Amino acid sequence: MPRHAILKNYDSLKKEGKKSRYSENIAGILHSIYYECLDLLVTKPQEDLKSLVAGKNYFAFSNGNKLSRAINKDLFDPDIARWEALHRAIHSNDVNDFEADEITKILYSMAISFCASIDLLKDGDQKTPGTFFEYFIAFFFTWRVGVEPKSSIQILNIDGENTELKTDFVYNLGPNSRKFHMPIKTSTRERSIMLWAHQKLLDGVYGTERFMGTPVLLAETKRDKKKKEVVEICLPEQWRVYQLYIAKLKRIYYLDTPEVYKGLSNVFPPLIVRPFGEFFFEWSELTPS
Amino acid sequence: MPRHAILKNYDSLKKEGKKSRYSENIAGILHSIYYECLDLLVTKPQEDLKSLVAGKNYFAFSNGNKLSRAINKDLFDPDIARWEALHRAIHSNDVNDFEADEITKILYSMAISFCASIDLLKDGDQKTPGTFFEYFIAFFFTWRVGVEPKSSIQILNIDGENTELKTDFVYNLGPNSRKFHMPIKTSTRERSIMLWAHQKLLDGVYGTERFMGTPVLLAETKRDKKKKEVVEICLPEQWRVYQLYIAKLKRIYYLDTPEVYKGLSNVFPPLIVRPFGEFFFEWSELTPS
Repeated sequence: MPRHAILKNYDSLKKEGKKSRYSENIAGILHSIYYECLDLLVTKPQEDLKSLVAGKNYFAFSNGNKLSRAINKDLFDPDIARWEALHRAIHSNDVNDFEADEITKILYSMAISFCASIDLLKDGDQKTPGTFFEYFIAFFFTWRVGVEPKSSIQILNIDGENTELKTDFVYNLGPNSRKFHMPIKTSTRERSIMLWAHQKLLDGVYGTERFMGTPVLLAETKRDKKKKEVVEICLPEQWRVYQLYIAKLKRIYYLDTPEVYKGLSNVFPPLIVRPFGEFFFEWSELTPS
Repeated sequence: MPRHAILKNYDSLKKEGKKSRYSENIAGILHSIYYECLDLLVTKPQEDLKSLVAGKNYFAFSNGNKLSRAINKDLFDPDIARWEALHRAIHSNDVNDFEADEITKILYSMAISFCASIDLLKDGDQKTPGTFFEYFIAFFFTWRVGVEPKSSIQILNIDGENTELKTDFVYNLGPNSRKFHMPIKTSTRERSIMLWAHQKLLDGVYGTERFMGTPVLLAETKRDKKKKEVVEICLPEQWRVYQLYIAKLKRIYYLDTPEVYKGLSNVFPPLIVRPFGEFFFEWSELTPS
């Protein structure tokens, strides 16, 4: 079977992404992917899911006996013209005509379209959506902060060995300027402690909060295929404990933000969890506290 | 299809394990499981795997188009009489007639028999082997240290909330006595940083090294089904960095110890990785350094 156009574009994305995380080439590929995904999804039946998440409604696309992941109805707006407008704004380096929530919706629609398409095209493939999401978010983040990320850091070693540690993306805006540590994951589930552990590592090597931890996540939904139910897997009490005892994350951004995490900004230690669209406007005001 | 005898016994193990981690009932269930697993495996063809791990040889059991995980030929000695002898020694509270390596082999043979059986009976089930391994290792650890573990800790909270944090097993031998923090996993792969992060949490809540971190792992092998090859996924440089910048683990025990990790005891910071059989003899000498 010939490789589907979505996957061919995904291959190109990885190839281009290795050269630079932000480029017009990548914008073009993201455009093609979004177009192809909508083209696929529009032919597939939608099934309502029973949402056990207060205040959120979800559906899924189906394909024979395959069922895509849950899609948030309020956030999903598969209008490619919205992305084209955002793309023009990014290209002219001015997104001030956009609301943060609008950006979140556009990005959510693009990301979830790809993930849902892979759910329908492949069988239990988590890697492809995860890798796509990394390139996808890095494109916007890299544009916004204006420097390319690195994915490894040098560890000081007094015994002459050269230790290079593989990390999530780190963005260094220069001496005495902001530095970001940005893990990108489609969800954290029971692995969320890794976000804080990697921050603790960077704190140890470069000094506490020299890199601000700003992970970007897609969602924490989990859908039961048989029951057609959606839940969000959230561990707010555990997150508080991680923020207290392991390291401090500056922000946690989501495209589909779990409501229960929003409350964490009002307790000690404060942990601010926000829609990723907010980053586009607040990034230059973030400072290590 | 009626539930296989192995799985029925596994259900009983979970039920009994909820009452107590060490009991004669559990010993009896482990015996039945081992017996049933060997009974199943003896009827299945063995296939040699191409080992890319220096000094180790592996094979797998097959069942139609299913192939079990890799089994270390030198460690696998499916002789139920050896377990019976160990069981008698444990029952009479004296294992001094056993060598550490012999205990490691007996435990490896039991654990891998169960995992391989599940690989052949079910489809891509990682949860059942993982849960079994937890009950299995906890049985021996609990006998050895003489107290039952807990799997949650109380977090000090000055604002009157009651925060109970779910953890890996913690064993508290009493005031001014040893306390162990013991995650149990069949492998760590790219999630190994979680071992150190959980240790860091306990260090934060109760004081550095008040609980000694002594994780127990089965193996780090990964076999490619098509190529019939086995590799070990090891990250010694990353482990050093975790031990330097996140927390200190006292020991890491394996049933099939990766050779490359053994070298970590000779570098700074020392990290001692040993076969689990050693724990039976050194546990009472371990002290927070």
